Amino acid sequence: MLDEALELARRNVERSDRDLLEELCIPSVSALPEHAADVRRNATWLAERMQRLGMRTQIVDVPGGRHPVLRADLEVDPSRPTLTVYGHYDVQPPEPLELWESPPFEPVVRDGLVFARGSSDNKGNHMAALEALEYSRMAGGPPLNIRFLIEGEEEISGTALGTYLRQHAEELHTDYVLVWDGGFTEEEEPALHTGLRGILYVELEAKGADHDLHSGTFGGVAPNPLNTLARVIAELKGRSGHVTIPGFYDHVRPPSAEELRSWDRPPEYGETLRRLMGASALEGEAEFPPIQRMWSRPTLDAHGFLSGFVGEGEKTVIPARAMAKVSMRLVPDQDPDAIAERLVPYVRSLSTPGVEVEVRVLGTCRPFLCGADHRAATVAREAFRAAFGKETRLVRSGGSIPVAIDFQEALGAQMVVSGLAQADSRPHSPNERFSLDHYHRGIEMLIRFMYGLA
Amino acid sequence: MLDEALELARRNVERSDRDLLEELCIPSVSALPEHAADVRRNATWLAERMQRLGMRTQIVDVPGGRHPVLRADLEVDPSRPTLTVYGHYDVQPPEPLELWESPPFEPVVRDGLVFARGSSDNKGNHMAALEALEYSRMAGGPPLNIRFLIEGEEEISGTALGTYLRQHAEELHTDYVLVWDGGFTEEEEPALHTGLRGILYVELEAKGADHDLHSGTFGGVAPNPLNTLARVIAELKGRSGHVTIPGFYDHVRPPSAEELRSWDRPPEYGETLRRLMGASALEGEAEFPPIQRMWSRPTLDAHGFLSGFVGEGEKTVIPARAMAKVSMRLVPDQDPDAIAERLVPYVRSLSTPGVEVEVRVLGTCRPFLCGADHRAATVAREAFRAAFGKETRLVRSGGSIPVAIDFQEALGAQMVVSGLAQADSRPHSPNERFSLDHYHRGIEMLIRFMYGLA
Repeated sequence: MLDEALELARRNVERSDRDLLEELCIPSVSALPEHAADVRRNATWLAERMQRLGMRTQIVDVPGGRHPVLRADLEVDPSRPTLTVYGHYDVQPPEPLELWESPPFEPVVRDGLVFARGSSDNKGNHMAALEALEYSRMAGGPPLNIRFLIEGEEEISGTALGTYLRQHAEELHTDYVLVWDGGFTEEEEPALHTGLRGILYVELEAKGADHDLHSGTFGGVAPNPLNTLARVIAELKGRSGHVTIPGFYDHVRPPSAEELRSWDRPPEYGETLRRLMGASALEGEAEFPPIQRMWSRPTLDAHGFLSGFVGEGEKTVIPARAMAKVSMRLVPDQDPDAIAERLVPYVRSLSTPGVEVEVRVLGTCRPFLCGADHRAATVAREAFRAAFGKETRLVRSGGSIPVAIDFQEALGAQMVVSGLAQADSRPHSPNERFSLDHYHRGIEMLIRFMYGLA
Repeated sequence: MLDEALELARRNVERSDRDLLEELCIPSVSALPEHAADVRRNATWLAERMQRLGMRTQIVDVPGGRHPVLRADLEVDPSRPTLTVYGHYDVQPPEPLELWESPPFEPVVRDGLVFARGSSDNKGNHMAALEALEYSRMAGGPPLNIRFLIEGEEEISGTALGTYLRQHAEELHTDYVLVWDGGFTEEEEPALHTGLRGILYVELEAKGADHDLHSGTFGGVAPNPLNTLARVIAELKGRSGHVTIPGFYDHVRPPSAEELRSWDRPPEYGETLRRLMGASALEGEAEFPPIQRMWSRPTLDAHGFLSGFVGEGEKTVIPARAMAKVSMRLVPDQDPDAIAERLVPYVRSLSTPGVEVEVRVLGTCRPFLCGADHRAATVAREAFRAAFGKETRLVRSGGSIPVAIDFQEALGAQMVVSGLAQADSRPHSPNERFSLDHYHRGIEMLIRFMYGLA
């Protein structure tokens, strides 16, 4: 049945392409209210295709959400395992329009690439999964139960799907989760995300006198909350990039030996990064290679600071207040809540006489670790090898993907976080493009993945 | 002649009051373009009065100035000394109008106080000097040559008078200068300003990557100019209030023994200051009493800081730039230019890899020291004692009065910096008021001062 499904996929590439191009015509821009109807139309369009595959679909308006969650279930045999595939049907706004070589919602194929907003992020990915399911169906499969959860709020950091997952955790029981929203490494190798950093985001507010003071009159005795908040931020992280919060590193788990091998980079990688950032040098913990500093080391960065007089020229005010935004990127097994608890008294201890510094937690996301030492990862890597002729790299991301945490915490299944987009696919940018070769091979990879898991 | 002049002053208090009230009706608000004609009218009004006293007047439009300098000369005898009296005929805007108990430019006398914008700052002061000259004239004096330099840009930090002084230094030769724009101490004692702090005001700009970066992706290797600028500001001044710029304190001259005696304050003075600022504690160099920290110790304060995302909520940006404004209050004999030269490499040394911090000098003013160990100060104190029955305190000010430096540097004469406003005169605030008792005694004091100097 596997071979027949693969054969069908190979014979029908033009049909697969047509399906993708049709979805790419829908301007499902979740951020723009004027596209709300298009976003919903995309959900309906997908639901109809899924129904044609014999799936039971629901378009769920979750309280608190702006766009619906599309759920589709195909139960072939309750005794077989279930694979849940995650994706999103919403896209980023296409602006700036003048930089597009062809209109963002009129997909065009040039040199084996389809150019359109959403082509790589995420329609090419989830459409490949639908096609894989379709060819498996035609070949008498699939060999396991399949569930799709495709959301419409990924690009606006919506919470509808997370809420839905936690509220329906029991009925959404699954054996495997494929978080299918990513792509290949810079070296064009398939990639499995084995971990993501979490975050603790705080706002600091320092208060001194109860009104702004004149620095001529009071400079020398007046508490200056701007100076003090600068001092707090300076002391939170040493010159070497080491965070000074007591116990901050207590639960940092080093990456696995396989991860470290997989993360190996040539010596010029730091130089590449430096150029990418347009910076004159890298910062941070010199004892760790750059890739570890970004993927498996926690950090602290200030994101905003506002206090006093910031117009043109001179004003000699000692401001009454100062505000800053600071976040810590956290790694497994650091706990944002525990660190927030240590941060508050520590910040207080860094203040100076007459200045009170308040810490407000604006957001947290736990770090994520799914590893590659499980069956789903092994099967995914074999499928990538067979379809692309390439080995899979283990990678992490320095950023957070909250939905991966939601899946892990709500469903607790073996998880693969991966995707098909080629490295130069330019998601979120003008002229987003998706490789049709990756699409076709990706359909085969996904067929192999389903058969391998069964 | 002195006694006759004093007698005339005493007999004519109502006439002196009328003169003051007439000037207070002119809304000479230098900051507001719609009052430009009123400002000039005030200069003309004063010039006419001075001409009636036999003075030669010039209304000088100095290139680069917004409002004219009024100069008036009365040469009684070239072999006698010359006294130059400084004042300003412009006033602060009266807003907020709704807080005034009577209209700001319709002077009203209640309980021995005249309420009007400009009553204490500075019309009451310079009108007392005009009246003193008038009564001296009537009594056959004055006994020395008198020059008035009354500017119209004091409240907008204009440079016209400073420019004029330096360009005409030779013809403006004088033996004594009375900078007559101040008032009594909080304890209602006459005060001589023996020193003023100077200032070095800089803007710092820190630059990291050439564009904003995502802290998830690059946090750990990206230079963060916000963190670095916070570090620079934190390191410029220790927790104890001590400035760390190399050589910063090299030329700090301690106050004189008489100044220290004059500055003596009861132990609860710190508590009074704390309440005045609305702060929970004083900051600064604990080894110096608060009054020295404000008057004779240099300081460093940040006045503004802007970088990155300062709106509501979270944004995980590593900003490409950060800007801060910082000033140092300097004391005799610190040199702002020499300190700026040391600051630049020192700031650079405090930076971190990948961040460049630029220092731009926005303004400087040298510290000022005129002391009280000269004839003009002695005569002023005797005159205050005779007219008010009070001893004079030596004080300094933590702020800068650039025109005092201009006078000192251009003319090099013995200088008295003082004034008549009572402590609760509320300059710059609604319901500004001036004590008519201070006005009348002030006229006598000024007559005695002129006769004493001759």
